[in-house]
Amino acid sequence: MNTWDYSSDLEPFEKYLSAVLSTEAPPPHKDLFKFWEGMEYSLFGGGKRFRPLLCILTAKALGKDPTVAYPLAAAIEMIHTYSLIHDDLPCLDNDDERRGRPTHHKVYGEDMALLAGDALQSLAFFVLANDYKDHPHLSTLIKSVALAAGPQGMVGGQVLDMLANQEAPIEELLKKIHELKTGALISICVRGTAEVCLASDSEKKLCKEFGDKLGLAFQISDDLQDHQEGEESKNFACLVGPEKTKDWLRLLSKESHGLLDQMTGDTSGLKSLVEFNLQRV
Amino acid sequence: MNTWDYSSDLEPFEKYLSAVLSTEAPPPHKDLFKFWEGMEYSLFGGGKRFRPLLCILTAKALGKDPTVAYPLAAAIEMIHTYSLIHDDLPCLDNDDERRGRPTHHKVYGEDMALLAGDALQSLAFFVLANDYKDHPHLSTLIKSVALAAGPQGMVGGQVLDMLANQEAPIEELLKKIHELKTGALISICVRGTAEVCLASDSEKKLCKEFGDKLGLAFQISDDLQDHQEGEESKNFACLVGPEKTKDWLRLLSKESHGLLDQMTGDTSGLKSLVEFNLQRV
Repeated sequence: MNTWDYSSDLEPFEKYLSAVLSTEAPPPHKDLFKFWEGMEYSLFGGGKRFRPLLCILTAKALGKDPTVAYPLAAAIEMIHTYSLIHDDLPCLDNDDERRGRPTHHKVYGEDMALLAGDALQSLAFFVLANDYKDHPHLSTLIKSVALAAGPQGMVGGQVLDMLANQEAPIEELLKKIHELKTGALISICVRGTAEVCLASDSEKKLCKEFGDKLGLAFQISDDLQDHQEGEESKNFACLVGPEKTKDWLRLLSKESHGLLDQMTGDTSGLKSLVEFNLQRV
Repeated sequence: MNTWDYSSDLEPFEKYLSAVLSTEAPPPHKDLFKFWEGMEYSLFGGGKRFRPLLCILTAKALGKDPTVAYPLAAAIEMIHTYSLIHDDLPCLDNDDERRGRPTHHKVYGEDMALLAGDALQSLAFFVLANDYKDHPHLSTLIKSVALAAGPQGMVGGQVLDMLANQEAPIEELLKKIHELKTGALISICVRGTAEVCLASDSEKKLCKEFGDKLGLAFQISDDLQDHQEGEESKNFACLVGPEKTKDWLRLLSKESHGLLDQMTGDTSGLKSLVEFNLQRV
């Protein structure tokens, strides 16, 4: 499978996500309607919903109702979205377009883009605390998401990446950048879902290993695509060569399947995600 | 009392706050040391620690050991600090100095300032979830802090304030701006401490009323100072005149004392805070 069609899994989640902003956290004053519209502009900006899907499909692989993972999926998508809004700002990547549309600050201004990003991060933690209020592992969940999002995770990875651009990064540093910048948030989709699904210790261990492998696999297939498109980025594909990188990707996919075979629920969704990633390069 | 001397209350808190960044959430890679240094530059930037103090003194007024409020105080100070770093950026207030020192982006660059703010917000929720992991009201606490920080609180107030600058704000809107922009975070210091102290319902009610009054009182005394210094801002003091504003402040202080008299712990700290605010104008 080389297309992205998970609409039956995603449609009910989209409705949930939309309701969070309009009913669970509505604007406290009419003059804020436009600011909410801005958050929606970016949150419903045509992304693949890779992270929410990973939450939903992990719940299914654990034999659970996927709706239990919706609040986690929403929170992680809000964090991912805020990071994109901030990344696009002139003081970082200075991008005018994302997914074929003007970036947030091009439509709403830099000041509002900065604040919309800040607001989405707060809302992410609001949704977790509000929707999992009676969950026995709430503290672990929030702690893990905060770690994955913050300076010991995604933000730390962005900083490392920016510093590394000033000189050629060595392999160890490159691994660290990937692990933090994109790996941490992908990993928490799987680990966090195991937590909200009250998975057993052995299931949690499987999920952690699978999440780490998938995060790494997605990163190196991104690198490979960049390399094939002739981008001059310093990445794994440039460092070890595209053939060796493809071999590595195949190995990771095989190992991922092996891990999924040990799960007791419906693993077909996660397996197709692994295949999608392998076949896109 | 018209000086700010709460060093005996604040010194042990400063040690705690410093330890959070160095031991509870240390940098995951040596290349991130400088980024941590930047967060510390702003977090230990010579502020009055008004919000942490409010947490500490509220715990004492409730007859509890103030150390129980430290993680809440740290989280709120991190949120306050991130908002200042972002406020100072060129796309918002474009300030070069704060408290007599260069602002974050003047020292570390705009990109790092943006990311340091983002990181401090994540860390705030990390500290709450990590340090109150066994607290029975963790979900209420995190939800309330996220609400106070996000688009339904501080960030929403900043947005409203920026929109209002474009035309003269009416009184109702001005009240809303204060309530959200500064009031929400001040109020959660008092309400949140009541929550972590496992206060009774009647104590929580007292704390909520006191926090709302103190937040408003601080805002209007700020307004009064701005007005006296000839600033052309649209605020309460300009709207209703300085004399009426002073009367209002006196009334709020009196009512605050009345609320504090109903608490059973050591209320001397909170009372002196109310007096400090009254006498500075």
